[in-house]
Amino acid sequence: TLQHLFKQIFKASLELQEDDNQKALLVSRKKHPENTIIDLKGETLGNGQQRLIMGPCSVESYDQVYAVAKAMKEQGLTLLRGGAFKPRTSPYDFQGLGEEGYQILRQVADELDMVVISEVVSPAHVEMAVKYVDVIQIGARNMHSFELLKEVGNVNKPVLLKRGLSATIDEFIKAAEYIIANGNEQIILCERGIRTYEKATRNTLDISAVPILKQETHLPVVVDVTHSTGRRDLLLPTAKAALAIGADAVMAEVHPDPAVALSDSAQQMDIPTFDKFVKDLREQGLYKG
Amino acid sequence: TLQHLFKQIFKASLELQEDDNQKALLVSRKKHPENTIIDLKGETLGNGQQRLIMGPCSVESYDQVYAVAKAMKEQGLTLLRGGAFKPRTSPYDFQGLGEEGYQILRQVADELDMVVISEVVSPAHVEMAVKYVDVIQIGARNMHSFELLKEVGNVNKPVLLKRGLSATIDEFIKAAEYIIANGNEQIILCERGIRTYEKATRNTLDISAVPILKQETHLPVVVDVTHSTGRRDLLLPTAKAALAIGADAVMAEVHPDPAVALSDSAQQMDIPTFDKFVKDLREQGLYKG
Amino acid sequence: TLQHLFKQIFKASLELQEDDNQKALLVSRKKHPENTIIDLKGETLGNGQQRLIMGPCSVESYDQVYAVAKAMKEQGLTLLRGGAFKPRTSPYDFQGLGEEGYQILRQVADELDMVVISEVVSPAHVEMAVKYVDVIQIGARNMHSFELLKEVGNVNKPVLLKRGLSATIDEFIKAAEYIIANGNEQIILCERGIRTYEKATRNTLDISAVPILKQETHLPVVVDVTHSTGRRDLLLPTAKAALAIGADAVMAEVHPDPAVALSDSAQQMDIPTFDKFVKDLREQGLYKG
Amino acid sequence: TLQHLFKQIFKASLELQEDDNQKALLVSRKKHPENTIIDLKGETLGNGQQRLIMGPCSVESYDQVYAVAKAMKEQGLTLLRGGAFKPRTSPYDFQGLGEEGYQILRQVADELDMVVISEVVSPAHVEMAVKYVDVIQIGARNMHSFELLKEVGNVNKPVLLKRGLSATIDEFIKAAEYIIANGNEQIILCERGIRTYEKATRNTLDISAVPILKQETHLPVVVDVTHSTGRRDLLLPTAKAALAIGADAVMAEVHPDPAVALSDSAQQMDIPTFDKFVKDLREQGLYKG
Repeated sequence: TLQHLFKQIFKASLELQEDDNQKALLVSRKKHPENTIIDLKGETLGNGQQRLIMGPCSVESYDQVYAVAKAMKEQGLTLLRGGAFKPRTSPYDFQGLGEEGYQILRQVADELDMVVISEVVSPAHVEMAVKYVDVIQIGARNMHSFELLKEVGNVNKPVLLKRGLSATIDEFIKAAEYIIANGNEQIILCERGIRTYEKATRNTLDISAVPILKQETHLPVVVDVTHSTGRRDLLLPTAKAALAIGADAVMAEVHPDPAVALSDSAQQMDIPTFDKFVKDLREQGLYKG
Repeated sequence: TLQHLFKQIFKASLELQEDDNQKALLVSRKKHPENTIIDLKGETLGNGQQRLIMGPCSVESYDQVYAVAKAMKEQGLTLLRGGAFKPRTSPYDFQGLGEEGYQILRQVADELDMVVISEVVSPAHVEMAVKYVDVIQIGARNMHSFELLKEVGNVNKPVLLKRGLSATIDEFIKAAEYIIANGNEQIILCERGIRTYEKATRNTLDISAVPILKQETHLPVVVDVTHSTGRRDLLLPTAKAALAIGADAVMAEVHPDPAVALSDSAQQMDIPTFDKFVKDLREQGLYKG
Repeated sequence: TLQHLFKQIFKASLELQEDDNQKALLVSRKKHPENTIIDLKGETLGNGQQRLIMGPCSVESYDQVYAVAKAMKEQGLTLLRGGAFKPRTSPYDFQGLGEEGYQILRQVADELDMVVISEVVSPAHVEMAVKYVDVIQIGARNMHSFELLKEVGNVNKPVLLKRGLSATIDEFIKAAEYIIANGNEQIILCERGIRTYEKATRNTLDISAVPILKQETHLPVVVDVTHSTGRRDLLLPTAKAALAIGADAVMAEVHPDPAVALSDSAQQMDIPTFDKFVKDLREQGLYKG
Repeated sequence: TLQHLFKQIFKASLELQEDDNQKALLVSRKKHPENTIIDLKGETLGNGQQRLIMGPCSVESYDQVYAVAKAMKEQGLTLLRGGAFKPRTSPYDFQGLGEEGYQILRQVADELDMVVISEVVSPAHVEMAVKYVDVIQIGARNMHSFELLKEVGNVNKPVLLKRGLSATIDEFIKAAEYIIANGNEQIILCERGIRTYEKATRNTLDISAVPILKQETHLPVVVDVTHSTGRRDLLLPTAKAALAIGADAVMAEVHPDPAVALSDSAQQMDIPTFDKFVKDLREQGLYKG
């Protein structure tokens, strides 16, 4: 019975401690029970309406971006993603157009009244980036670059934070806390697959992370089906799963001619495939936008 | 240009070899393009209709099984799972009721006109098990017990084969091949989460495995949401994802009083939660049974 | 201060609980502080002298086994391993010679006064195996086949238990407990690499497991460098690490002509390489046998 | 036979392609067969002599650093590590003393004629850091921060690059290539454990990475036993394994009073333990410095 008493105390203490930890975090739902809603020129994220975020992996040219953006607008989509700075494993791979890439995205978005989401890879680029982009993306490889997180915490633009290659959900939440602790409350979390032993897919989509992140934090949660799977044939089925489980948006990559893409050619949809992707999600009642 | 030629030949050869490998497998869709459909006393798996497989983790008593089975029947469900032999990490944990557990399942199933799915853990038990069960389950820990796979390959009952704790999709498919190569074509594959570094869930549900297995093989694919997540609060959201991505069935655990369950108390639903689980899936149009 | 008190109680309770768990295990050093020493016809494992266990991956013929065994004897080694029953991912790969393989091993061992270590893959084979082998090996794929563990727990022969493909150290220890709980105290633990995301090696050798297993249990610990790395060029360096960290033995595979081996041709040493392997370990003072 | 021919061509092409890839890298041994030797004020890394790199996890005060450095000098060690900028999972944990930390390290090193190794976490800090440190460390969390890698590629100081939390060996080598491609050839690679499912240790020390990195590149390879294991009781055994397998140096953490350390208190050695650590390595002939 003494032992039993100790076990009771043990459990109570454990819960107390966990409460303490969670209470401290500004991103936690305990601290802020209502959903954070992010308004992207009229498209909201976090209020229950589910969105699609699309665009090419890398910005390659005005024509390339325009072709994709045009197809998106025809489907009523306005959230345009594209990479200007590309973190690549090898220094000899295409590293992106840099500032020119941001300019192309901005120009196309202005012409078609769209929203630009693009990655920033260095604290030194943040000031420049905010002139062009509407949402700053922090990529998976930089989720643990705390100086970059602090820098975007000082900015008055929403931040889309991707989960690190092998970050735990707890580390992911704490990375978001670096941003909010510096004053920026507009944070979007993005599950993009984790690194596991399984090689049939590029990463393993951790679909359970979506409801956990929605429970633990008040932030919108996006699923990037392109980087999770790395396979064009899995984009539609995983998008269905992501919408069904309650993701606030699905992100996927589209390229006018994937075979000649400068990066990730095996995983981008061409425009007819993209059209079918949106149509199928609508027909099954999973995408209502 | 010579180099370019070699690369072309390289790719062609690679595809040839892969074709060869796939062609050889009896479980592959290349060998057998039509879906295998398994008829469980009128409930079919594999023909597009999605099913729910429910029941307690371990069989503990007639009353316990009956309470769950009754609640299932009231919802129109007939596929009853329950463990009579329980593989447990520690030899000192509850190991199941053994043959008595099979007898209880059979008795309840006969009274309520249901189908029994239960695990077999040793080649020596197969002969006894087929007297009681309708579907033989091979658990994750035995996916690589090839002697057991060969044994159930000789039986005229459907086999539900769970993916090993850290089996690749390729190894999982080849484990099924051990069964079909011995003559038994009635195989159901079950994704039940894989072991990764992430500890927020018991395992990581590899949701992408569902469309891959459906593409690569002609076999029905089930998702066990209980063992994937190990968390009661994630059963409903992951079930939605599994149905949306096209699983032939979702498996989950129900216990009349999870707090006193002899195994896995933290992850089983009680009966009111189960009723709500089925109701929610129906209301969202994800479960049509 | 109340909080501080709770934290103290918490820690005390935690330690109490952990103590309980560890105390219960018969394999634990807490239960049995002295090393278990296993005598294999005069070669001991567990008393501080470090051994080499060598032999072909699969038994293919009398001549093949004899060639390897002869080379071993010339180096003064007597612990001969070889697979008669081979668990293979595909049912169409060579599955071993079966009982004939055991017979060949026994014949060669008798002629050269050596010890036979060979795997058993099914509870039904144990009775037959003990007629031929001196040490029963349980392979990685069967570490969780609890019925097989119970069966070898009833036998009066040492058991070499391999760590499962993705077993935690805790699960590995509890698998050994299944054997000892059935009465067999002669258990040798074998670290053979774990499954991770890294593909430069077949598995990732978890070298830290050696001192942990030596601390937590009283059993001898062997490192299988062949299956850990799957690369012939890494056998010697990892063997050095294993001996330096305190493994009781190193296990590695040798084949008279690896290029034509029926299994694992890329990872076995030929006889001149084996001779150099033993010589190098001796010269560096790492192997003193 | 046509098929056999194709397979031969396939293998030849595969090797050709791999050769190409490896040939391109400036860090590869194919490009530069001789070992890169790095001279740290007389202590060399890469020429076969094995070194010990020690120091506190975080710089906390002059007295703290001095106490450790003094103990090191008494053992004849001069390579002093210490963190001034600490990447921490939570923004509310101690983040290091910043520039003051570098100043303390420099002052102590100048007084005792030692070499300072300390981490840089942002491209903006590099210019400041080189005023104080002799070797710039890039931490595991920043291995994929390519802008930081490029920045330290422009500096005339050696760089100690840690393997990312879940970086493959191939990605690790390519991260080093970012540095050398920008002109800095003085690179030290550091294996510090990888993230796996096993939780008995903080990370899993991938000891096989040492010989692979030595084969594939011409750079010195260090093993950080503290971060690999996260357990004080494993520092000595894993250091033995690292030296036996051929690491150019072992890195470990020492604190005058680990119980009150501001970071990682469970894994640092106190000074008597450190003295015993060095003594034991010397006595076993594994450390000859």
